[in-house]
Amino acid sequence: MRPSGRKLDEMRAVSIETGFTKHAEGSALIKMGDTHVLCTATIEDRVPPFIKGSGLGWVTAEYGMLPRATNTRMRREAAMGKQGGRTVEIQRLIGRSLRAGVDRSALGERQITIDCDVLQADGGTRCASITGGWVALKLAVNKLLKAGDIVSDPLVDPVAAVSCGIYAGQPVLDLDYPEDSEAGVDGNFILTGTGRLIEVQMSAEGQTFSRDQMNQLMDLAEKGMSELVTVQKAATL
Amino acid sequence: MRPSGRKLDEMRAVSIETGFTKHAEGSALIKMGDTHVLCTATIEDRVPPFIKGSGLGWVTAEYGMLPRATNTRMRREAAMGKQGGRTVEIQRLIGRSLRAGVDRSALGERQITIDCDVLQADGGTRCASITGGWVALKLAVNKLLKAGDIVSDPLVDPVAAVSCGIYAGQPVLDLDYPEDSEAGVDGNFILTGTGRLIEVQMSAEGQTFSRDQMNQLMDLAEKGMSELVTVQKAATL
Amino acid sequence: MRPSGRKLDEMRAVSIETGFTKHAEGSALIKMGDTHVLCTATIEDRVPPFIKGSGLGWVTAEYGMLPRATNTRMRREAAMGKQGGRTVEIQRLIGRSLRAGVDRSALGERQITIDCDVLQADGGTRCASITGGWVALKLAVNKLLKAGDIVSDPLVDPVAAVSCGIYAGQPVLDLDYPEDSEAGVDGNFILTGTGRLIEVQMSAEGQTFSRDQMNQLMDLAEKGMSELVTVQKAATL
Amino acid sequence: MRPSGRKLDEMRAVSIETGFTKHAEGSALIKMGDTHVLCTATIEDRVPPFIKGSGLGWVTAEYGMLPRATNTRMRREAAMGKQGGRTVEIQRLIGRSLRAGVDRSALGERQITIDCDVLQADGGTRCASITGGWVALKLAVNKLLKAGDIVSDPLVDPVAAVSCGIYAGQPVLDLDYPEDSEAGVDGNFILTGTGRLIEVQMSAEGQTFSRDQMNQLMDLAEKGMSELVTVQKAATL
Amino acid sequence: MRPSGRKLDEMRAVSIETGFTKHAEGSALIKMGDTHVLCTATIEDRVPPFIKGSGLGWVTAEYGMLPRATNTRMRREAAMGKQGGRTVEIQRLIGRSLRAGVDRSALGERQITIDCDVLQADGGTRCASITGGWVALKLAVNKLLKAGDIVSDPLVDPVAAVSCGIYAGQPVLDLDYPEDSEAGVDGNFILTGTGRLIEVQMSAEGQTFSRDQMNQLMDLAEKGMSELVTVQKAATL
Amino acid sequence: MRPSGRKLDEMRAVSIETGFTKHAEGSALIKMGDTHVLCTATIEDRVPPFIKGSGLGWVTAEYGMLPRATNTRMRREAAMGKQGGRTVEIQRLIGRSLRAGVDRSALGERQITIDCDVLQADGGTRCASITGGWVALKLAVNKLLKAGDIVSDPLVDPVAAVSCGIYAGQPVLDLDYPEDSEAGVDGNFILTGTGRLIEVQMSAEGQTFSRDQMNQLMDLAEKGMSELVTVQKAATL
Repeated sequence: MRPSGRKLDEMRAVSIETGFTKHAEGSALIKMGDTHVLCTATIEDRVPPFIKGSGLGWVTAEYGMLPRATNTRMRREAAMGKQGGRTVEIQRLIGRSLRAGVDRSALGERQITIDCDVLQADGGTRCASITGGWVALKLAVNKLLKAGDIVSDPLVDPVAAVSCGIYAGQPVLDLDYPEDSEAGVDGNFILTGTGRLIEVQMSAEGQTFSRDQMNQLMDLAEKGMSELVTVQKAATL
Repeated sequence: MRPSGRKLDEMRAVSIETGFTKHAEGSALIKMGDTHVLCTATIEDRVPPFIKGSGLGWVTAEYGMLPRATNTRMRREAAMGKQGGRTVEIQRLIGRSLRAGVDRSALGERQITIDCDVLQADGGTRCASITGGWVALKLAVNKLLKAGDIVSDPLVDPVAAVSCGIYAGQPVLDLDYPEDSEAGVDGNFILTGTGRLIEVQMSAEGQTFSRDQMNQLMDLAEKGMSELVTVQKAATL
Repeated sequence: MRPSGRKLDEMRAVSIETGFTKHAEGSALIKMGDTHVLCTATIEDRVPPFIKGSGLGWVTAEYGMLPRATNTRMRREAAMGKQGGRTVEIQRLIGRSLRAGVDRSALGERQITIDCDVLQADGGTRCASITGGWVALKLAVNKLLKAGDIVSDPLVDPVAAVSCGIYAGQPVLDLDYPEDSEAGVDGNFILTGTGRLIEVQMSAEGQTFSRDQMNQLMDLAEKGMSELVTVQKAATL
Repeated sequence: MRPSGRKLDEMRAVSIETGFTKHAEGSALIKMGDTHVLCTATIEDRVPPFIKGSGLGWVTAEYGMLPRATNTRMRREAAMGKQGGRTVEIQRLIGRSLRAGVDRSALGERQITIDCDVLQADGGTRCASITGGWVALKLAVNKLLKAGDIVSDPLVDPVAAVSCGIYAGQPVLDLDYPEDSEAGVDGNFILTGTGRLIEVQMSAEGQTFSRDQMNQLMDLAEKGMSELVTVQKAATL
Repeated sequence: MRPSGRKLDEMRAVSIETGFTKHAEGSALIKMGDTHVLCTATIEDRVPPFIKGSGLGWVTAEYGMLPRATNTRMRREAAMGKQGGRTVEIQRLIGRSLRAGVDRSALGERQITIDCDVLQADGGTRCASITGGWVALKLAVNKLLKAGDIVSDPLVDPVAAVSCGIYAGQPVLDLDYPEDSEAGVDGNFILTGTGRLIEVQMSAEGQTFSRDQMNQLMDLAEKGMSELVTVQKAATL
Repeated sequence: MRPSGRKLDEMRAVSIETGFTKHAEGSALIKMGDTHVLCTATIEDRVPPFIKGSGLGWVTAEYGMLPRATNTRMRREAAMGKQGGRTVEIQRLIGRSLRAGVDRSALGERQITIDCDVLQADGGTRCASITGGWVALKLAVNKLLKAGDIVSDPLVDPVAAVSCGIYAGQPVLDLDYPEDSEAGVDGNFILTGTGRLIEVQMSAEGQTFSRDQMNQLMDLAEKGMSELVTVQKAATL
């Protein structure tokens, strides 16, 4: 029934290649099927003005898509002179989600910026960015630990994300683009490795859904998480 | 326990004054406690390019805050030269939510723009905008029906919104600003008059929540909805 | 002869409601007929760079119109990415006019920003902004006096404004929108309570006027001022 | 008493050199003392959307200052990414003023753009722009007449401008920069060759003025106009 | 003598992987040592306004760098709200260079956009973009030929680019970043497969160079070209 | 054969008028035939952040064209809200070129900004800007020397520029606009008074050129330089 032939509760193949670029303190290329996102982590010895002197660290994120990551070319945001509303929404979500897994006091007064750039898109780019972004963050934090710049690990519980939605009337796990563009209900679920919730966003376009359906999507998301966390761990061993 | 002395499941006083301004096809001033939002509806005989010729209508929204709607003055977005990320997120949510209650085919190829301008803010401005925006939309649609421009009512099920969150460890309904700024978990629930879900957004900042807590917040939201729909109906009789 | 049936030298009904919003140090909703402007005053302990260390204060203003304050919806300036030329002109005029009534030395090194937001427009929004803005300013200054932050009142002479023009060949007082859009000559007169002039702007579009007509408009403006100052005083008792 | 040694009612030396640049349909370099403005007129066979099909023409203006036209270098507006408020105010005034001398019906459905670029500034640049801009406009219109593109002259009455102000307590004609930066009251008077008024702007900064003083400034302006119109006529013979 | 241990006239290892992303009509990941650029080609059935109806095609380019392609993170241009001067210069150069190898009449009235996004930078990104961009262009054109949309190959002579400079007093081929940041003279040479010149840019920063040195750099560039053209051909067999 | 009747190796008449405007520390109006550029030099006691504390000075440039400097009116960059790609390219070139003739250590920690504004354009505006800009720079430096602010002359070797190109198959010196718009190959040559090279840019649009042709253009440029340097010297005696 799914265009890809996957089962309702079957995720796409997930892989994470670390060290894809060499300059960043952490870098990871995550592939969720045909969605490929390059995530890099940059450590800087400064924090935003609103926490200066607080002793707390900050994790933030920026998101972009290469113009031809998609089936038809999108205008380059730098050339348009601003980031679109969708981009702004997504990068705020990524930053907020990753911060939920971080003990900002243990991180100390420094900032880590996660850049998530979509090289190829096939649905679920924000979820892939969070899952891959966590890996880049982990690699950067490991450098700080190794160098003795911080003494206890500020990453308390891994963070990953998966989308679920109602496609052709059925709840399905990990929507790809053909499903996403048809799905009437679409959700993003950001969880931790221990199953705690960080962010849940369910949204209907041009229709509505029931509380039962909400629970079915939530069930699928919990199922998907275990696989993602396993891949994250393998990548950062 | 709540700063306002309200019970855990008690909403703020809600009122909606229609016709607050005279030029718009529909206008409503909604007050949820000290949060006051002026919502206006504008009908135009044009639709966005991507649905031209489809026979379908469009409902969209824009959101703004007067600079001194808040306790300290915020910079005017027009003077800054762009809408902030929070503004963009909110106005996309309002538009998406309202569209879920509209039969766009019955609306016909026209656009209704809902402007939501916060005159005074005390938490929950996006929810108030959706609830009040629906009333402005309803008034505008009534004009179209009365004028015979459309024959069947495109508003199939009223749309309203309420926030819930975990404040001081307790699930509470309809957060005001003192609660919102302290709450570790915060959710916006957009529902229809018949209890269907349109959008659910739950988000933790710097912590996490359990699935049980998610369900408690959902319960509170459902409870709050009936009061909102009653006020909406009274306003558009 | 006037669309509203008013006499040539008759102003619209004027009212000023103070405390319309609660956060600002001063707030006033002024209604000149169907023109409604919300004016708020914000006190900040900083001044622009060019007077830092001078011991002088500063009063400045910003102006905006809600998109549907007018008969057809105007694009939101924040969404357009800049303030239009008309907006810039108006807010510079408001700030300059209000400063003329202020002893900036008595105010001390602080800034008061007057935000004038037009909720509903029917001609004369810049004059209403000045007249209502003065009231918001007065309320804010009263707070400083009461708190002992300043010892002598820096507001030396009340400032108010009224428009006059030549409509259908006749000089008329306080143009409303139907008159304003037809008037060939249009003037804004900003005066003090003691009849001193602060700013006079008379402008013809597509025609010219004589010095006699200029004097007739000036006479009307002086007549209108007394009523405005009375309403201002009543509002700030 | 005046820094330049001029009498109270004495203008600076005025000269207008036509044909200063070769591409424009009309070009004039006006010098009012040390204020030098290059004015060019461009004819285009299109009009703004709001008068398309009306048979009427349009005259508009743009204004700029070279970064080092002034005593200290100003940032280049193109590099700042926008025109400042002062620039916008001035160019709107220039366009409005010139249009008052034009029979837009005789001009026909075409647009003439007057570019006023200040090469060197010493006060009164907006007045010089209007006076010089009229000459550039006249030269361009003469080309249309000569070519037979229009049959009757749309320039019905020459337009020129002069500033007056109260300097050291005295009303003076044609303020230069040292006077302008000290003057408490400052006015711009735009008149026609037959003495009709187009625009009068009088403005006090940090003080006020009386109706008598207003009339004294107006008298000075009328005196200054005759000289300007003579120079304009000589330049366009 | 060179930091990398390369001989004076030795290029870095060059490889080109085609089909790196799947949506674009042509895509290539070029690696010149540690400089990695993803080039994609997009075909669109429209041309810029200035050649509409001419029967000629257009090839253009856009260039970007991921924020952490470099050793320290650069601000994202989309977030800054504009493309920097360096970016604009480079993308104009890429487009101009590629067009020199194209028979725009044979291409027909369509546009091909080459996006060059630097994933990792180590000097010479503009040259790598041109060399890799040509491959993406070639793959896209091959699709048009195969589909019968065009009948004769518009790519008349392959285009590639290499940098040369004077490092530590010696002319060297293919500068990497450590060399580039120290080199007093730096040149980019864009040539065709048959040795014709398209663009030559030699530039000294803070010093000068002789005509002899210019010729030495030119000699090195010609030497480097043969290798690049060989790699291009192998990639597009 | 040339539209102007000039010989292949004949430059246009060149003149430089110093002191064209009075406020700048140095000002020069350069005319290369019908190309007229006003160059001014501004000295400021600050340097860009990246050299603060280095003891080195900085020379930078900005470039602009008046809207009607050209045959058809171009949109004003300040009104468009940004400098175009061509403008950015040119002003970077001017700054880089002038710096090559400056001993930045002898200049000391101050910045000189060269503004080049094209009053009338007929091809070769960037070359005229460099040649005239050098004169403005020289005049400003002379003031510093005379005032004793610097003790040794930081201008080590005069900098000038000329364009050459292949027009109608022939190499020609100093292209004017009719030639420039037809030339298939076009080069800018920036040299010093002693014949050293600073920057060489040769570019083909829609065709290619040989190394022999490159050398012919280089020969012409060297010939043209002597005349330019002579005019520069005469202007700054």
